[in-house]
Amino acid sequence: MADKAQIQAAIKVQGEVVRKLKAEKANKEQIDEEVAKLLELKAQLGGDEGKHQFVLKTAKGTRDYNPKQMAIREKVFNTIVSCFKRHGAETIDTPVFELKETLTGKYGEDSKLIYDLKDQGGELLSLRYDLTVPFARYLAMNKITNIKRYHIAKDFDIAGQYDPMIPDAECLKIVHEILSELELGDFRIKVNDRRILDGMFAVCGVPDEKFRTICSTVDKLDKMAWEDVKNEMVKDKGLSEEVADQIGNYVSMQGGMDLAERLLQDPKLSQSKQACAGLMDMKQLFSYLELFQVTDKVVFDLSLARGLDYYTGIIYEAVLMQTLPAPTPTSQEQNGAVGEDAGVSVGSVAGGGRYDGLVGMFDPKGKKVPCVGVSIGIERIFSIMEQKAEASAEKVRTTETQVLVASAQKNLLEERLRLTAELWNAGIKAEVMYKKNPKLLSQLQHCEETGIPLVAILGEQELKDGVVKLRTVATREEADVSRAELVNEIKKRTSES
Amino acid sequence: MADKAQIQAAIKVQGEVVRKLKAEKANKEQIDEEVAKLLELKAQLGGDEGKHQFVLKTAKGTRDYNPKQMAIREKVFNTIVSCFKRHGAETIDTPVFELKETLTGKYGEDSKLIYDLKDQGGELLSLRYDLTVPFARYLAMNKITNIKRYHIAKDFDIAGQYDPMIPDAECLKIVHEILSELELGDFRIKVNDRRILDGMFAVCGVPDEKFRTICSTVDKLDKMAWEDVKNEMVKDKGLSEEVADQIGNYVSMQGGMDLAERLLQDPKLSQSKQACAGLMDMKQLFSYLELFQVTDKVVFDLSLARGLDYYTGIIYEAVLMQTLPAPTPTSQEQNGAVGEDAGVSVGSVAGGGRYDGLVGMFDPKGKKVPCVGVSIGIERIFSIMEQKAEASAEKVRTTETQVLVASAQKNLLEERLRLTAELWNAGIKAEVMYKKNPKLLSQLQHCEETGIPLVAILGEQELKDGVVKLRTVATREEADVSRAELVNEIKKRTSES
Repeated sequence: MADKAQIQAAIKVQGEVVRKLKAEKANKEQIDEEVAKLLELKAQLGGDEGKHQFVLKTAKGTRDYNPKQMAIREKVFNTIVSCFKRHGAETIDTPVFELKETLTGKYGEDSKLIYDLKDQGGELLSLRYDLTVPFARYLAMNKITNIKRYHIAKDFDIAGQYDPMIPDAECLKIVHEILSELELGDFRIKVNDRRILDGMFAVCGVPDEKFRTICSTVDKLDKMAWEDVKNEMVKDKGLSEEVADQIGNYVSMQGGMDLAERLLQDPKLSQSKQACAGLMDMKQLFSYLELFQVTDKVVFDLSLARGLDYYTGIIYEAVLMQTLPAPTPTSQEQNGAVGEDAGVSVGSVAGGGRYDGLVGMFDPKGKKVPCVGVSIGIERIFSIMEQKAEASAEKVRTTETQVLVASAQKNLLEERLRLTAELWNAGIKAEVMYKKNPKLLSQLQHCEETGIPLVAILGEQELKDGVVKLRTVATREEADVSRAELVNEIKKRTSES
Repeated sequence: MADKAQIQAAIKVQGEVVRKLKAEKANKEQIDEEVAKLLELKAQLGGDEGKHQFVLKTAKGTRDYNPKQMAIREKVFNTIVSCFKRHGAETIDTPVFELKETLTGKYGEDSKLIYDLKDQGGELLSLRYDLTVPFARYLAMNKITNIKRYHIAKDFDIAGQYDPMIPDAECLKIVHEILSELELGDFRIKVNDRRILDGMFAVCGVPDEKFRTICSTVDKLDKMAWEDVKNEMVKDKGLSEEVADQIGNYVSMQGGMDLAERLLQDPKLSQSKQACAGLMDMKQLFSYLELFQVTDKVVFDLSLARGLDYYTGIIYEAVLMQTLPAPTPTSQEQNGAVGEDAGVSVGSVAGGGRYDGLVGMFDPKGKKVPCVGVSIGIERIFSIMEQKAEASAEKVRTTETQVLVASAQKNLLEERLRLTAELWNAGIKAEVMYKKNPKLLSQLQHCEETGIPLVAILGEQELKDGVVKLRTVATREEADVSRAELVNEIKKRTSES
């Protein structure tokens, strides 16, 4: 460590530098840099002088997860990953940051949300915004044409040229399984198709170059009333009232396979080849969904748009329903076949769709790899689960410890450590208190607080007899168990619970 | 989408802008920005004009993980996390980026390695460099004084005021368990203590303010010869030859509890109170390690320094040994009690130590929370495991699929989908090919390639009889199983293997 007086002198000088720059109104970056140097010096000093300089917070938009939250998170992750594995997916991983140009131009109006890094040795880097674009980059880079993969317990995709709508139906089945298993309450999966949307825009008279931006506006229908959406179309995006009203008529429609059949007969919409292709596939999709027995939750909803640019075919979004007393029906819900009386949605928890063009954007020869995928909104699901856990009386365990090795007498630390190591080596999850002579009461309290079900108590007599007193915390029952039998006895008792 | 001609015109204009800036030798950032705009326009165009603009690579210093690599990774993660859970740890998570000032001044000479982000709404952010500093920030922010936690399958720490060296010994036991279970070959865990190092520097005549920088130089002894390390001390860091040689004498020592006892009698070193405190604790540590039966792999090594500033007590590092033919002994190894003939180390795979001051640096009142922890070098372990897997003949499975639902006849897609959904709903990991009429051979090949052990074959006759032909891929044995028994039969056959 540098001499304290030296550092104090350096702090004085550096303090002057900062004051001077601020007085001169120097640029922010330069001031920040000098302030950082000052803080670094103060930190070196330690002691009282170095205090108070740290803002104890996480970066905006980020948060910590405490053990209880992580236990719930792990449960959510396990459910999702088990489902992905049940469906035969492999897993890959890609870095948290990508070359900026990899992400540029893939998201449309959402691309403002990309975080850029400072120049790192000549490379412009950005934090990834989703896992789909890095996945497409991965496929093109490795010339992979067929894969079913998941990525960090939230993204599942099927890449490859297959018979239509079979992988798409599996994605919806996966959403259905995950949301059912997590017991988040009633839900609906809205489906639509970009080709149907584009066909609808075309027959309503939206100019080609406005398709994507009008799509973004339609996407707001889950948060805004139709009147406001229409307003944005007319005032901000320059559509005529008539065109907007025609769109309004279509986007209020909801149904199932029947709606797809009806729209194939629609005199206007059936003029669009694109829309017809989308509607035929929608029929096919519903026939597979019937085999999978998930049509009770799936709604063909013409108001579903999804903001991202890269979708090319079917799109979907799962929303949780919250049964509220007498909800005011919104225009979208009036024509609904499913979900009419089921309440109002409380936000999207999963979404995805088909993106057949994205991989080709990365391939030097533009070679396409058709893909369909789904992304689970784990953050939203996690906060719902957290709220539920808080509301319920059930205690969430944050460790899996099966037994605490304890003693009631003094001077048995060494014996406790020896037994604990024996248990660890036998694969038992065991804890021991890090004190030479802990009180029995505090050892038992630790078990109560953290939910450890068993205590293995050592004493002079037990050591002499070659036994351990095994206590069940919940019932306070105790029984002597021979040292040789202990591991099996612990396994037996903890597998029962 | 915007009109193609419009975009082409915009590309021309933007191309001119870029050419002009380059001709004017404008600053790099500005040029990059305009180039990005140009690429974005080209990307919008799609088609041939948009090609070749993407560099298909990951950012420097990052990599993708393919399914095979991820399968190995998952095995490593599971082993490590199981060990952490066996030792009763909870888990927490902190964001990938922190306020820059949180990370500033904690690492010493290693702090150059911190990645900064661009200013995000007035906050200066950096990517975390390790998990220890964010953990300390978390403890101070949440006023936590006692916790045993792990973090993303690699960091394990015990925070709290306990009787000396018990948690420290547990950390070493954990390293021993993990490296043994992963079967990476022989290893050694080197231990030392910052107080012993500082005391040694003091009695050798190193000025106080040079302790940390000399520490960093000593830390290079695992990669550099003593002569080069000495050179750095004398030429770059301004020590006299005599002082350097005295250090050289100490850092060549290796041993166990005996060495700690011997050094307590060392006429020079025993003059340092700090060193004596460290040596007493080292003795205590070895007595616990004997109870844990891990002393065969632990070496008290005075050359171990560890670069990071935040350590205050015991430090350790695990290295793998590689038995090479007749290794040239280096100066450090000549005095070694353990490891003399065991070969040479091939790099650190785990490390850690005690950092009693770090949490206090974040606490507004400087309140200290003593901590000791270990970090597993998962990237290095993972690449060793990967090399081993490549060298071995054993095939690594990347999915866990138990059964493929297949058929030999045409027009059975619907029946295949129905059965697959039944199996998914019963928790069976099942796949089905996304083709209307796949050939039986290609279905069987898919099983061979991906290691799926069973095939459930449907045909007209089976459907009539209410059975499924269950085939074991390895033996080609087939047996009719009733539809009602299928789930149990699959579970039975796949639990055996």
